[in-house]
Amino acid sequence: MSTAPQDQVPREERRRRTEATILEAARQLFAEAGFERATIRAVASRASVDPALVMQYFGSKAGLFAAAARWSDEHQTVLDATREQVAAAALHDLLEKFEGEAADREAAVALMRNCLTHPEASRIMRDEVMCERAAAVADVLGGDDAELRAGLLGACMIGLGMARYVLEIPVVADASRADVERLFEPVLRALSDPRPPAG
Amino acid sequence: MSTAPQDQVPREERRRRTEATILEAARQLFAEAGFERATIRAVASRASVDPALVMQYFGSKAGLFAAAARWSDEHQTVLDATREQVAAAALHDLLEKFEGEAADREAAVALMRNCLTHPEASRIMRDEVMCERAAAVADVLGGDDAELRAGLLGACMIGLGMARYVLEIPVVADASRADVERLFEPVLRALSDPRPPAG
Repeated sequence: MSTAPQDQVPREERRRRTEATILEAARQLFAEAGFERATIRAVASRASVDPALVMQYFGSKAGLFAAAARWSDEHQTVLDATREQVAAAALHDLLEKFEGEAADREAAVALMRNCLTHPEASRIMRDEVMCERAAAVADVLGGDDAELRAGLLGACMIGLGMARYVLEIPVVADASRADVERLFEPVLRALSDPRPPAG
Repeated sequence: MSTAPQDQVPREERRRRTEATILEAARQLFAEAGFERATIRAVASRASVDPALVMQYFGSKAGLFAAAARWSDEHQTVLDATREQVAAAALHDLLEKFEGEAADREAAVALMRNCLTHPEASRIMRDEVMCERAAAVADVLGGDDAELRAGLLGACMIGLGMARYVLEIPVVADASRADVERLFEPVLRALSDPRPPAG
């Protein structure tokens, strides 16, 4: 085995970094060019990798878009949450993605717009990203109607994202992050807390 | 005064009916042609009225779009609701608009798409329709953060509409209307009910 410096980084970690670089380039390209006009070749060029590597890692443009839309790191926080934590975790995830230190808000907004305007992007978001995510959240929630409650929780997150970042409805867009967290967490908890007895 | 049959209908009622005919034609045209390509002339032609009448009633294409987006009848139900009723009323309003007997789901979905893809339609939806509606709901809600809670309530409605009718996320789109009402009303009540003491 070589002892050259680049080999001191484990293979798996190197792959993870390359994937992150490709995904960052993909988010930029999908934002700038839109789903239809962004190409694997252009993404590879921006990430300074071979197009074949992009195909090897993500399989297709659809796979690349799904991965870019998946927001992998924050997603994991939600999956690792308990039922008690999942409302706050999902909310923190969304706000961090759009407003956190490393947020690329324009790319995230563009991703949402792509999903709303390109049928293929919409299909990927629905069948790969949202379904997968709703299923994972349903596992965390458990109990009656877990899948539908998880889906509706996703709907609330979409609505908050639309109102605050895409439509920019003033009262929602101008509110402090703290106020949004304080008032919106109970909204999500209405779906994640155990149901009270009917009455 | 003439006693001809058409004059047995009061003037105000005749105007209301003509407005409704124009708005129905406008919703169809905005759905078919999109915000940018729909014209006052085409709407007037479909409604069998003079374009000048459309201008007289709605002022401009922007005014016509705002009126078409306002969903006037159901809107009134929400405005007439008490704080106790407003969550159920808003939810019923949305579901009825998209799924009720007289629902024109395609036109309603197209209206949402127009708002998401045309900057001018988005501006009208934000500055005229949503702001006005959030202000009216805030009046119904009262209490601390009434405006932001009203805005977030609107965000949840947008999210439900997006998930069920535009993105058609399967678990949300396939659920029965009764299940959606049962599970989503507590979500909205988290914003409309008096706040519990912090703790």
